[in-house]
Order: sequence, then structure tokens, then C-alpha cells
Amino acid sequence: MKLNSTPKKDGFYMPSELAPHKCTYLLWPERPDNWRLGAKPAQKAFRQVVETIAKYEPVVLCVNQSQYLHVLGMNMKNVYVVEMSNNDSWIRDSGATMVVNDKGEMRAVDWGFNAYGGMLDGIYYPWDFDDYVGAKMANIEKVDRYVPDDFILEGGAIHTDGEGTLIVTEETMLSPDRNPEMTKEQIEEKLMEYTGCEKVLWLPYGVYMDEDTEGHVDNVCQFVAPGKVVLAWEDNPDDPQHERSVKDLEYLESVTDAKGRKIEVVKIHVPNVITFTKEEAEGIDQVEGTYPRNEGDRLPASYINYYNCNGAIILPIFNDPHDVDAIQTLSNIFPERKIEPIYAREILLGGGNIHCITQQVPKI
Amino acid sequence: MKLNSTPKKDGFYMPSELAPHKCTYLLWPERPDNWRLGAKPAQKAFRQVVETIAKYEPVVLCVNQSQYLHVLGMNMKNVYVVEMSNNDSWIRDSGATMVVNDKGEMRAVDWGFNAYGGMLDGIYYPWDFDDYVGAKMANIEKVDRYVPDDFILEGGAIHTDGEGTLIVTEETMLSPDRNPEMTKEQIEEKLMEYTGCEKVLWLPYGVYMDEDTEGHVDNVCQFVAPGKVVLAWEDNPDDPQHERSVKDLEYLESVTDAKGRKIEVVKIHVPNVITFTKEEAEGIDQVEGTYPRNEGDRLPASYINYYNCNGAIILPIFNDPHDVDAIQTLSNIFPERKIEPIYAREILLGGGNIHCITQQVPKI
Repeated sequence: MKLNSTPKKDGFYMPSELAPHKCTYLLWPERPDNWRLGAKPAQKAFRQVVETIAKYEPVVLCVNQSQYLHVLGMNMKNVYVVEMSNNDSWIRDSGATMVVNDKGEMRAVDWGFNAYGGMLDGIYYPWDFDDYVGAKMANIEKVDRYVPDDFILEGGAIHTDGEGTLIVTEETMLSPDRNPEMTKEQIEEKLMEYTGCEKVLWLPYGVYMDEDTEGHVDNVCQFVAPGKVVLAWEDNPDDPQHERSVKDLEYLESVTDAKGRKIEVVKIHVPNVITFTKEEAEGIDQVEGTYPRNEGDRLPASYINYYNCNGAIILPIFNDPHDVDAIQTLSNIFPERKIEPIYAREILLGGGNIHCITQQVPKI
Repeated sequence: MKLNSTPKKDGFYMPSELAPHKCTYLLWPERPDNWRLGAKPAQKAFRQVVETIAKYEPVVLCVNQSQYLHVLGMNMKNVYVVEMSNNDSWIRDSGATMVVNDKGEMRAVDWGFNAYGGMLDGIYYPWDFDDYVGAKMANIEKVDRYVPDDFILEGGAIHTDGEGTLIVTEETMLSPDRNPEMTKEQIEEKLMEYTGCEKVLWLPYGVYMDEDTEGHVDNVCQFVAPGKVVLAWEDNPDDPQHERSVKDLEYLESVTDAKGRKIEVVKIHVPNVITFTKEEAEGIDQVEGTYPRNEGDRLPASYINYYNCNGAIILPIFNDPHDVDAIQTLSNIFPERKIEPIYAREILLGGGNIHCITQQVPKI
């Protein structure tokens, strides 16, 4: 049922991704104008993500009817295959943000979705099915939902510590193709009303060339604990990522969170530059209205786009010299969690990574 | 996940419909070659059933994508709207039978479905979506499923007392368009293996002119307690229903259940003869391959096709003089349950009634 109130008014808030989960949702990739070779290489990578998460918690895998029997037939343990019409597979962005209260109740926030820019510069058209992925998630979980009127937000544009602080990027949130009629203050107010947070931190930048999302926070910075984040870093001052990382670091060093804490920053160096090969680009259908992928395009590769599930971290790696550092850094931060590295180039080719294709449902 | 064992081997059994439910599933009617006037009158009746059940337990309402926004927009309390491609709306028959064990676990039995007769005389074609309704129900409920190989069964063809006894009709179960290669003994064995029952009672007949289902038990006889049933009855010896009811009564008086109890039978008289009007028949698209509905066709109206939900009985009525008797008889049997009569002609016109369009998920 659609509720007319807001989470904050009703005492609900968005928990940290690090809090225990009931399950994880994913959408199955299919569209051949974004995923090369009829999405088969991407499906293989998604399946690896699904089966890895399913070792730790139940997975609800949402699939267009056209792929339903294919996926059901994989008969994956602890994986539940549910029909859901979709335009593409970024459930972090199209899905619901679950909120909870102190009585152990859960509800959903079903944000507006316009494929990262609507008619101005959305990356695919139409996005009618994806706009209802959040509603469908809420209904499958049998929870009521809040629907912020006239407000576009992708789940990958926000991270929370679960203790009142939200982190976003100005690049995404102030982009003219999301909520151009709103001021920064109005956006901040809306975010707090629907996540139950009390303070929003505004990083200036996302990752360089993260053009699909216009710089989602979930590719550049993630809470590892209240008062502590990991940040995508580039040492080389000649690389355009360097200045972005420096500016974000300076910002983080200048602010406090909702509880008045300084923010501790742990850097995780990005992998070396990854670009589309000719073969990869040629495997993608060229379709009017879909964001094009060309040979030589630089991809927004980052280790920060990992996913926290119960007892594990599902980490994208790239067969890159920096892989080991990312694994070690996260191992040191999370000695109690298993690091599960997955070679994720095929997901990256679609424009995002493991965090972008997952959405948690908290355990209550 | 599809399991390779059987419920009986694993200690699972089908509980009585009278046991507490977690929720009720329904499918939304849509096809204009079965439901008159683009299914709008039927949708109104289904909605009344949905909202009535939702007063007592959560309802999961499964809807083709084509009707999703229409139904979501109704914003019904305690009703969860889930996308599910379907050919028609008889979830009693196409859905899963849930089984439980004594440890509080639940699994699904995902029977084969061939639209009541497959290529021999199924009532619609194709039935590809409906054959996966059971699998989808299991996956939405996040339970594993048993899949009896090469075995066709509709959920409306079985009733259980939850204490080891199953009741079926010979008309349906021995029909040559379901499992013609199996003997009665083999069918009985399969039924017991997948419901966990120890004894099958074989009524000879269903309701007269119940031609769609070939005489499902759920239109003629239903357990009201272990050792006690209600039976569709017709006093008039000139009506073809009379002899059917008499034969069923004689059978029930001649047998004992799995626990050795005699069966007490309470008669509920059927309504007066109901036939398709010209206007009703003309409102249905005539389509090759779909069972035709013609003016003057007699409908298999019966009060026995009621549904037991938590604390209530959802009873089809027909604006018929016998309505009051049916209500009183059930009130006397179930003083602790609220009788909720719903005028159900529009559901009956589609070939079934309230029990046929509902499927319970037990509470564990």
C-alpha cells in the first residue's frame, strides 16, 4: 500500500548496508544494446555474484519473463527467481530503499526513476518498467511503501552510516536532469525526510568518466563504520581522477557527521585505466536512444563499488595490480568478514559494478 | 530450488485449509475470451474477494504486467501486488500446494498443469505461463519446491483434512486428458507421496456440468473438520445433479478416513439452475482454442466452492433462495468464523468460483 506520510514522520530510517540483511535483490541483465553478445558474458558474471551472495544470505533474482525459464533452470541454492519486467539490471538504482523502525517493522521508499536523466540525457528509453521495480520489491516483501512525489533518486546516489548521516555527491544530486526545479536545500530536506537522516554530506565529485550516473557516490565513497569511509583514490597527478579524489578528501576532512564525529578516510587506489576494446564495443547492439559504448571509452572502474552482505564483502576486481591492495585494505578493516573478489569486467562494461546490481533488504 | 525428493520422504505434508494461513494468493482475471466485457465485471468481483480476504490475512495478488499499474493504483490495504505472467486466473489449480513439517518449515509442490486437458481438451491454449505459476509462488515465498515428474494435477482436484486423508473425484482424476498412462493405484500413490497423506477417498462425481474441470472435488465436497464434510446436494430427483449427489453420499457413507473414522456428511443444497444469458455470452470474445460459452449453457453453481481464510469463510452466493440455507449451515458448523457472502455470478461465468481463484500459504 502507498502511504501518504514520510519515514521521518513515522519514525522509520534507512539502516546501514552493514547491518544484518534478510536477503539481497538483483535484476537479471538482458538488453543487447547495453550488454555485449546478447548479455551472455554479463549473465555469467551476474550469476557468479548471485551464487556468491547466496552462500551468505537468500537472493531474490528478478527476471523478465523472456529469461524466466532459463534462470529458473539454473536451480541455484538459496536463490529465488521472481518475474519482474525491467528495462535494465541496476536494482541499486531502480529498486526500493528499505527503512525500519525500532519496533522491528519495515517499509519501502519507492523513489522516482528516470534512467539517469529522463528525456534530457537518460541512458536508455523507455524506463517505464524500471520505475516500478521499487514498488514491486516492496510488494514481494509484503511491506507498504512511501512514494516521494516528484523526486528522482537512484539508490546508488546515497550511502548512510545508519546513525543519521547520509553521503551523496553534488555531481549527481545537483545534475540538471534529476530534480532541476529543486534547490540544494530542498533536495537535502527531501533526502532527510525519506531516509530518516539528520545530516547530508555533499562530496563534490564521483569517479571520473562515471557518465552514466553522473558520479554516483557508491562508486567513489562508502561507509565502513560510522565516522569512517573508504574513498576511491588515484596517486598520479596527471590522471583526471587525482584531482577529484583530492577534492573529495579535502571535503571529508573538513566536515563532521550527524553525531559530530570527524570522518576517518581510508584510501583505496583505483585500478589502472580500463577502456572498451574493439571486440567488446562491437558486441553491443547500436540502438537509437541508448547510451553508446565505443572502442577506447574509459570505464569508471573502482573497488568502492563493492557490496556488503551478511558476513562478506563482494568485491569487484579487474585482474589489475591494485586488486591485492583493495583486498588487503578491506580485510584489515573487516577482519570478521570474508572478502569475496569477483572478476567484474563484464559488469563494468555495462556501466556499473557489483554494488549497482544489488539491493539489500534489512533483517528486522 | 527444485528438490529431487518427495514431501513424504522428507516428512512434509499438506495442512488443512482450515489451519492458520500466512497469506492468500490470487491471480487477476484479464483474458477477454473467458471473461466478458474485457474482464471488467469479473475484476470487480475479484476485487471484492481480495479486499474481503485482506480483512483477515495478507493477500498476494498476482497480475500480468499489462494490468499491473491498474491494480497497483487501487492501493488496497493488506494487499500486495506482484507481477506474474499468466494465461488465466485459477490459482487454486495452477498454483503451488504448500507442504509443512513438524519443525515449522515450508516447501511447495509445483504440480504439472495443462489447462484441464492439454491438447486433448484443455479449455485454453497455450498454458505455458500457468504451468509456472506454482514455481513463481514458491519463489516469491522463498521456499524450495518439489516437482512431480510427468504428473498433471490441479489444486482444486484435492482436499485434505490435514490428518492423512485426501479426497478427490474419479471424474477428474481418471479423466483421459490428465494422466492417461497411469492406473488409479499409481495416481493414488503419487498423490500420497506428494501430499504426505496415507489414504485417498475417491468420490465418483463432481458437480453436473462442471465441464471445464471435469468435476473437481472443490466444487462438490469439502472437509469442515477431520471426519466431517459438506456435500453439494440436490433434492429434485429430476435434476441430473441429484443422482450425482446421491452416489457421492453413498460412497462417503461406505468409507472411513486415514484414522479409521466414519465420515459425517452435511448437505448444502445447490442454487437453482443458472444459465448464461444472451448478453453475458455475447460479451465474451469468441476465440479458436478457447472453451466456448453460449447462451443457455448451464453453470456448475455450488456453495461448496467457498474459501476458508483466517477466521472467515468467503462464500459465493447467487441471489438465490438457497443462499440463506448455505449461510446458516456454515454458521452452525463454524460459529467461530465470520461468514462473508459475496455475490459471485461473474466468477461463475468464467467457469469456477471463489475457492478456484484462491490459494493459501500456511502459517508456520
